Amino acid sequence: MNISPIYTPPSEDELNSRKEKLLKLMDNSKLDAFVIADPDNIFWLTNFANYVHERPFILILSKCGRLSFIIPKLEKMHAESRVIGQIEYLMYEEFPYAGKGSWDLLFTAEISKYTNVGLEETAPQFVANLITTKTISSELVEVARYIKSDYEIGRIVYSSNIASKSLEKLLSMAAPGVSLLSVNSKITKLMLLQMLTDNPESNPLATNVAAVVQPPAVSDDPHNFTNIMEMDMAAGGPHVSIINGTINGYGTEVERTFFLGKVPKKAIKPYEVMMEVRGLCYELCVPGADMHDVDFKAKEVFKKYGYAENVVHRVGHSIGVTGHEGPFLAEGFHHEIQAGMLFTIEPGIYLEGIGGFRHSDTVLVTPDGNKNLTPVKDSLKDMTLSISALNFSSSPAFKKKLLKTYNRYFGLNIKLE
Amino acid sequence: MNISPIYTPPSEDELNSRKEKLLKLMDNSKLDAFVIADPDNIFWLTNFANYVHERPFILILSKCGRLSFIIPKLEKMHAESRVIGQIEYLMYEEFPYAGKGSWDLLFTAEISKYTNVGLEETAPQFVANLITTKTISSELVEVARYIKSDYEIGRIVYSSNIASKSLEKLLSMAAPGVSLLSVNSKITKLMLLQMLTDNPESNPLATNVAAVVQPPAVSDDPHNFTNIMEMDMAAGGPHVSIINGTINGYGTEVERTFFLGKVPKKAIKPYEVMMEVRGLCYELCVPGADMHDVDFKAKEVFKKYGYAENVVHRVGHSIGVTGHEGPFLAEGFHHEIQAGMLFTIEPGIYLEGIGGFRHSDTVLVTPDGNKNLTPVKDSLKDMTLSISALNFSSSPAFKKKLLKTYNRYFGLNIKLE
Repeated sequence: MNISPIYTPPSEDELNSRKEKLLKLMDNSKLDAFVIADPDNIFWLTNFANYVHERPFILILSKCGRLSFIIPKLEKMHAESRVIGQIEYLMYEEFPYAGKGSWDLLFTAEISKYTNVGLEETAPQFVANLITTKTISSELVEVARYIKSDYEIGRIVYSSNIASKSLEKLLSMAAPGVSLLSVNSKITKLMLLQMLTDNPESNPLATNVAAVVQPPAVSDDPHNFTNIMEMDMAAGGPHVSIINGTINGYGTEVERTFFLGKVPKKAIKPYEVMMEVRGLCYELCVPGADMHDVDFKAKEVFKKYGYAENVVHRVGHSIGVTGHEGPFLAEGFHHEIQAGMLFTIEPGIYLEGIGGFRHSDTVLVTPDGNKNLTPVKDSLKDMTLSISALNFSSSPAFKKKLLKTYNRYFGLNIKLE
Repeated sequence: MNISPIYTPPSEDELNSRKEKLLKLMDNSKLDAFVIADPDNIFWLTNFANYVHERPFILILSKCGRLSFIIPKLEKMHAESRVIGQIEYLMYEEFPYAGKGSWDLLFTAEISKYTNVGLEETAPQFVANLITTKTISSELVEVARYIKSDYEIGRIVYSSNIASKSLEKLLSMAAPGVSLLSVNSKITKLMLLQMLTDNPESNPLATNVAAVVQPPAVSDDPHNFTNIMEMDMAAGGPHVSIINGTINGYGTEVERTFFLGKVPKKAIKPYEVMMEVRGLCYELCVPGADMHDVDFKAKEVFKKYGYAENVVHRVGHSIGVTGHEGPFLAEGFHHEIQAGMLFTIEPGIYLEGIGGFRHSDTVLVTPDGNKNLTPVKDSLKDMTLSISALNFSSSPAFKKKLLKTYNRYFGLNIKLE
């Protein structure tokens, strides 16, 4: 199993083997063709990333392995410069457009060649409604993407290296009074620069990185990023720091809960319980296990400690060309964990008025267990950062603001010279 | 008609009047309920912006005006902190999840109350397949959004002010050898800072700004941003600069074609023809006109000058809570232009090996014509920028690199002292 980072675009062989995975699943379902409109599925099969605008991009795979790609004329040169492998373009005039040369006429002419047509579960109504033959909605492409190839793993290892370094950098910048906007812009720029330096061919349309910190005031609400950019880090915690996204087409995620200066008493137990549950998840997330079990057993431990009401999400999702994708480590999701799958492991609990407690990592399932691809430090001791910002070479105004925060927090009355 | 910038969140009255627009269209189509899954449509009706992840968010509007909102438990606090107006939450346990408390059981129980159900044309199969009563796919919400309220116009005026200032700043930074990554990160940071400074409540989940420049080497391919972040600006042109996106929930777009130092001879005619067609579009984009006509007549002029093969896109799209939305200034799209609509006006031509020629602006249709909300300078004279970067306070390495470019371009052999 390859776990060396890969930077280069996929080979034609790699893309052909992805197509073969899908063709096998189509054959099991007796499908003559499969219709693909999801941009991530199209990228996985062609290496072409498109904007998600109103102009339709539709890929059709026939059971004979022929790929037909309906795209606007506007994207001809762009598609040709990116697509890897054999493909037939069906180019439409523009959207909207009436009559000969419109996308819907091209699509209906092409799809009428087939009897049993498969369609993504996410496919929009305006595409589904044009198919008059027998159709079956199915997650075939998503399932074909469950187990990653060595190439995909190498790309995700690389993305995860960048994410880990970026989180370490973010933690080194952490101090009360540091604005989240400045952290965000510095870290995302760092990630992009690293990507541009390493990759012989990079694609901004397949790149989307986030670097944010939820300060203690909002970390109890895990998806609330309201006003977050205008907030500052604060003394104490818990802060939840988040690095995730897709870097040149391949996803990663790493998150750490941290404290500045000292840990509030009420935060110690939930942190330690989160760590215990996290350890259990790593034990359970191995080949042959049921995905449901990992989440279910994690919840049992949270319950034992009295946190049943504080669990609001499953313990993990998969990562590939989409940052969030199936399969899931989730109650009720009974699928077998297999080597070559990738999951986030991120059990979390959220206590109103106290804060959020969650680490997340990108974890590869190996033949004999699993391997954390984002091994940033995680203990409470390591995540209690010393307050050192006063020693930074900051502006007088910033130092004054910082000192005010410190004085209030520590009950002091230090003055700037 | 209000054209003063607005920064504050919408009032409950504003959101109710949007709901009323939709209820009227539902009544015309005899619908008992309408199902909304598009994140932008949900934002427009509720002021709540969600991640586009795999967890479903589904809004149902009944003909009596009742809004039911199916969301994951995880987003409870987040939704409550953002939604404006009366709404009933139906919260599901998690996704995926089996049995009582799953999103699909909540949805089917709710939707079974209605007989004639309307569904967005973009709604995914996995939602559509759960509706067993009579359903009609329709663009009702998109149509309800065609004519903007004074509030929406005020928000877009504000976004457009930021975009215009940012483009002017970008042009002031332009010089051969300037890296596109540095332009991108400086300008997007500037836009975000301005937003955070002005707005009492800002939402990063409803904010997505782009600031890019296509250098001459790729500007002939309008949607190709391949490797663009690692490229530099070059002497000559045409460069196509692009500022667009949604700023705190409301979209804008402004683009200019520009040259550095001098204009290649082959670029003069296409620039002037683009300007002539652009002038015609402004004349035609007025209340009472047919949207089709604007695009069709623009193409006629391009053809007259021998550029029939170089036109690859329509002359405009609308802008609202989505950066790109209907209605369209497009051949075959027969709809009446009305006051309160907003369009980009952006006729463009693309000559392989020479480059792209396109300005774009955000234009409001007024009762007596139209008003450009992004009135950045646009003449060939103004868009031929003097090369002044050598006078910048740059690093010696940068100056050396720049000088090399200059020497090559002007056939000189100047050396740094």
